[in-house]
Amino acid sequence: MKILIIYAYPNQTGFSAAVLKTVQENLHANHQVKLLDLYQEQFDPLLVFNEQQRRRDLVTEPAMQEYREMLEWSEQLIVIFPIWWSGMPAILKGFIDRVFVKGFAYEYKGLLPVGLLKGRQAWIITSHDTPKPYARFFQQDYGRVLKRQVFGMCGIKPVKLTEIAYLRGSSLEKREKYLRKIAKISKAL
Amino acid sequence: MKILIIYAYPNQTGFSAAVLKTVQENLHANHQVKLLDLYQEQFDPLLVFNEQQRRRDLVTEPAMQEYREMLEWSEQLIVIFPIWWSGMPAILKGFIDRVFVKGFAYEYKGLLPVGLLKGRQAWIITSHDTPKPYARFFQQDYGRVLKRQVFGMCGIKPVKLTEIAYLRGSSLEKREKYLRKIAKISKAL
Repeated sequence: MKILIIYAYPNQTGFSAAVLKTVQENLHANHQVKLLDLYQEQFDPLLVFNEQQRRRDLVTEPAMQEYREMLEWSEQLIVIFPIWWSGMPAILKGFIDRVFVKGFAYEYKGLLPVGLLKGRQAWIITSHDTPKPYARFFQQDYGRVLKRQVFGMCGIKPVKLTEIAYLRGSSLEKREKYLRKIAKISKAL
Repeated sequence: MKILIIYAYPNQTGFSAAVLKTVQENLHANHQVKLLDLYQEQFDPLLVFNEQQRRRDLVTEPAMQEYREMLEWSEQLIVIFPIWWSGMPAILKGFIDRVFVKGFAYEYKGLLPVGLLKGRQAWIITSHDTPKPYARFFQQDYGRVLKRQVFGMCGIKPVKLTEIAYLRGSSLEKREKYLRKIAKISKAL
C-alpha cells in the first residue's frame, strides 16, 4: 500500500514523536511510505485569498502542488498529532485549509458536496489531557471533526480514530500499552 | 468598555470584512477599541516547544507579550472569522494555541482547570456555508469549541455566538438583514 504519514508535532522527545517512531518501525516493509512532517517542512498554514489571489484559483496554487500530489499518490493516510484546545494544531488545520480546497478534495453537485478523494482510507492517532468519557460525551471535536467533517466529506473512508486520553495523568505503563496497541495496528495495515 | 476585536480573514472585500466594518461603525464612541487583525499582523500561528524551548516557558514568550497584554487590557472580546472546515482558520487557532497558555489563560488546581481570564465577556461572529439546522444538530464545532471549550475553560463569560449560516446560498437581502442585526448588537454593547 502507498502510505502517507502526516505528522504535526514540534517536540522530538514528546509523546507524539514516540507514536510516529512506533508506526514507522512497525509498518510492513512491502508498503511504500512517505512522511510529511509539517513542522520540519515549516509549512505555512495561512490560507490567503483576496482580490488578487482568487479563491477559485486555489485548486492550482503552485505552493500546494507537491502536497496535492502526495495525497493523490496515497491509498492510506496516517495522521499523527496532539489535540490542542479540543482540535488540531494550527499547522495541521492550515494544511487542511490550503490543500483540501474545492475542486481538489470535494465539489458541489447542486446543493450537496461530493468527495473527490474516494479510494483512500485514514487512521488518525491523537492524544490529549482530558479524561476520555468527558471528551467523548461532553466536549466537541477531539479528532471527530477531522474524521467525519473533513475526511468524511471528501470521501475518505473508513477512518479509524485512535486516541490516548488524559496523557497528563497517565502512567508509563499506560503509555507503553498504548504504543503496543499502535504497533499492533501498524503491523496489520 | 475596553473592547478588543480579534479579526481573522484575508479578503478585504469579503463578507467578514463587511462584518468588521459594521461592528466598528456601530460601537459607541465612549468605548476604547483596539483591533487585532491577525492577517495584517502576519501572525505566526505555529506553537513550538521542544528541548530548547520548554513548554513551561511559553507563559513568558516575548513574541506573545503584546497579545497577552491586549487580552489583559480587554473587558470585551469581539472575535470575527469565517468557519472553515467546521472550525477556526489556522491563524486564529494558532493565536489560541500560542497565547492561551497554561499559567496565563488557565491553571490546574488539582485535577480541574481553573480559568484565569475571568471578568471578560466575548462575542463571536462567524459565517459558513452549511444549512443552519445541519450545522447545529449533525456537525460539531462551528464556533462552539471556541465558545465553550476555549473561552469557557478560561473563565470568559458570557459568550454570545452569532452566526450566518449557508452564506453561499444567501440572498443579498439576507446578508443585509444579518449586518443590521450585527449593527444593532454593536450599538447595544
